[in-house]
Amino acid sequence: MTIREAGRALRSRSVSSVELTTLCLDQIAKLNPRLNAFITVTGESARAHAHELDRELAAGRDRGPLHGIPIAHKDLIATKGVLTTSGSKLFAGYVPDFNAPIAQRLADGGAVMLGKTLLHECAYGITSDNPHFGTVRNPRDLERSPGGSSGGSGAAVATGMAFMATGTDTGGSIRIPAAFCGVVGLKPTYGLIDRAGIQPLGFTLDHVGPLARTVDDTWIAFDVMVASKQRLRPAPTSVKGWRIGLPENFYFQHVAPEIQDAVKQAARKAESLGAVVVPVRVPDVDALNNIGRIILLVEASSVYERYMSRREDFGFDVLSLLDQGRMVPGTDYVNAQRLRKLLVQDFRKLFQTIDCLFTPATATTAPRIGQKQVELDGEMHDVRLATTRLVRGINVLGFPALTVPCGESADGLPIGLQMIGRPFEENLLLALAAATE
Amino acid sequence: MTIREAGRALRSRSVSSVELTTLCLDQIAKLNPRLNAFITVTGESARAHAHELDRELAAGRDRGPLHGIPIAHKDLIATKGVLTTSGSKLFAGYVPDFNAPIAQRLADGGAVMLGKTLLHECAYGITSDNPHFGTVRNPRDLERSPGGSSGGSGAAVATGMAFMATGTDTGGSIRIPAAFCGVVGLKPTYGLIDRAGIQPLGFTLDHVGPLARTVDDTWIAFDVMVASKQRLRPAPTSVKGWRIGLPENFYFQHVAPEIQDAVKQAARKAESLGAVVVPVRVPDVDALNNIGRIILLVEASSVYERYMSRREDFGFDVLSLLDQGRMVPGTDYVNAQRLRKLLVQDFRKLFQTIDCLFTPATATTAPRIGQKQVELDGEMHDVRLATTRLVRGINVLGFPALTVPCGESADGLPIGLQMIGRPFEENLLLALAAATE
Repeated sequence: MTIREAGRALRSRSVSSVELTTLCLDQIAKLNPRLNAFITVTGESARAHAHELDRELAAGRDRGPLHGIPIAHKDLIATKGVLTTSGSKLFAGYVPDFNAPIAQRLADGGAVMLGKTLLHECAYGITSDNPHFGTVRNPRDLERSPGGSSGGSGAAVATGMAFMATGTDTGGSIRIPAAFCGVVGLKPTYGLIDRAGIQPLGFTLDHVGPLARTVDDTWIAFDVMVASKQRLRPAPTSVKGWRIGLPENFYFQHVAPEIQDAVKQAARKAESLGAVVVPVRVPDVDALNNIGRIILLVEASSVYERYMSRREDFGFDVLSLLDQGRMVPGTDYVNAQRLRKLLVQDFRKLFQTIDCLFTPATATTAPRIGQKQVELDGEMHDVRLATTRLVRGINVLGFPALTVPCGESADGLPIGLQMIGRPFEENLLLALAAATE
Repeated sequence: MTIREAGRALRSRSVSSVELTTLCLDQIAKLNPRLNAFITVTGESARAHAHELDRELAAGRDRGPLHGIPIAHKDLIATKGVLTTSGSKLFAGYVPDFNAPIAQRLADGGAVMLGKTLLHECAYGITSDNPHFGTVRNPRDLERSPGGSSGGSGAAVATGMAFMATGTDTGGSIRIPAAFCGVVGLKPTYGLIDRAGIQPLGFTLDHVGPLARTVDDTWIAFDVMVASKQRLRPAPTSVKGWRIGLPENFYFQHVAPEIQDAVKQAARKAESLGAVVVPVRVPDVDALNNIGRIILLVEASSVYERYMSRREDFGFDVLSLLDQGRMVPGTDYVNAQRLRKLLVQDFRKLFQTIDCLFTPATATTAPRIGQKQVELDGEMHDVRLATTRLVRGINVLGFPALTVPCGESADGLPIGLQMIGRPFEENLLLALAAATE
């Protein structure tokens, strides 16, 4: 059932929010022991809240499209009275006395919080194989990674444990799990959605956004999440004449052939609806990725510097990154930020000739848990790099990027299409994705 | 003669722009050999331009209050076809083929460029004792420093070599020479005036603004320099009821008693006009200064990193700062930028209770050239610190700050009052300064 269908059913009294919530909680009880998508389940308060929302609806108070809809929050978003670990031992006992504004906003919109989803430690990685709270597993294949860092959110949404879940994305952390779990994920324009009350990682790269099963569900959630809509360009009525850029360089190199095919197929689908596919050369994405790496290393180490005396409280991979970040000179960081501005200009120029860019989200489908290398074009590639190299640069740009499922691999794993748009044109991306879904 | 008086004389044909220009050029010819305020004098083109502007005015074309007024540019502002050294050996032969937008804007407003003013090497220091192009001297006492880095602009304006000169201010470089030379200097709100075509030093701290002899002249120049006036709050009609904060901490400590007295006297003058003087405690200005130091060290070293193989082309003091900047870890820089945001909030809170802050601009009057220490409160203090500690933190805030003369020391040296305002409230500062001048 989609959020829109559930909304109709709620309003026709053919289902109650308590029933929807119970369905989700049953699914969590059934699947979570194996998937480990949730770190905390707030069943009791969810049922009570759903009951309250049912009474409101019966009394004629309608909070909008998320009224009575069960959702989940990534466990680095502060939730009042509910454990918020950030996947870190540092915060293993942290119970905030406030809601992050985005959690409050979704609650005000009538969403029922089912609990908190597990993530890669400190959101600083893409496997969601958490050394303190366990390994999140991919619902399609329990031996595979769901991606990360919002792995719990991806797995929860994919299995109907929740209609929608929040995620954060500093270098692909919404889009990678969306691609690996076969759901939709949106990294909105930098700065569009309030990040207060969310554990930071890279404060010039961090974004918060929704994961959901369908484009329409994602759109509904996004619309509720945005506080100031004035900056958003409205959705167009048709995709006719839209210019879709299909990169000739970078984005289709060292990418699994079935992923290349699926993305190009999606472009042809859009073309059949009246869009125009334009072959383009993209600016230096390698430079963009390197810039993102330097900025993130420094900013993350700045966030965790005060905890570096507690080395034993970090997992090996996160500790290594935090140590690396402390060795980067300030001038490298400043140079990266300066080069960033030039590359943003280059991409703005590219986006004068197109309305959106179609690329694969990841170079491979979900790897096996613990897998380090993957063969692409006859060469062995680092799995981490193959997973991040097509998404992380977009955080440096701050442009919105939407990931939607666009097929399956021969072994039945989801393939993700990444659609990149101009700042504040999320509605265009969502309309195009909805048309071609 | 003020800019307004000159403007009236030009329009009544009692003087021509050519005559004004010749007067300034004569003054330059007479004084510059000793003061070294100008590094380049463009006499011929200035006369030709003035002649052109006289013809325009005669033909009924009036470009506004700077039409026909002779001015000068700090020698790090790109001027088409005119040497632009930034006071550095690196650019000793650099002749830009374009005007910086701010130079173009003043030319479009009818200003006549007389030439370029000497500065501290790379604008990275406050003495204007330039190892490559000579020492700028204070017109009040040739053995004393005019301050810096816009020392040439300060000396030129103070002696009538130019009606107005541009300056840049990364940690006091407009306000210090204004205070030491006895003229008015305005560091506008961060980002308000376009910095394109100006050699950067600290790209989150750099500001460009005017120096002139009177508040009204400064106001006229500022008004022409601002391209987008929508963000500016308009000037009030009266200073009645204005709340002037007079700091109880920091700003009057380790400051020469006669400077303290002069600033407090200025506050009493404003009070006599209907303003309200409010004793306030300011947030941690030491922290603000330390933040500014770390940010500037890193940003300046980032700008000059590519030239570090040419060590012999830098003066000793600048090279030392550039070397220091390369040793600052990125995390320190990022932490400084994060702390900066918190302190801006603290100051915004303070400015809810007051409309502007009156402080001394410098803790001492102009030191002797080469002087390293100064006695204050019976202790020896570093001259550099005594000169910068009251101004540099304001660059971290990005708030506008105006320096106006407010008296003289017993030995006849000018004393500067610093008026700090809320972002985009330059017109309030200028109106208050005009009323109390």
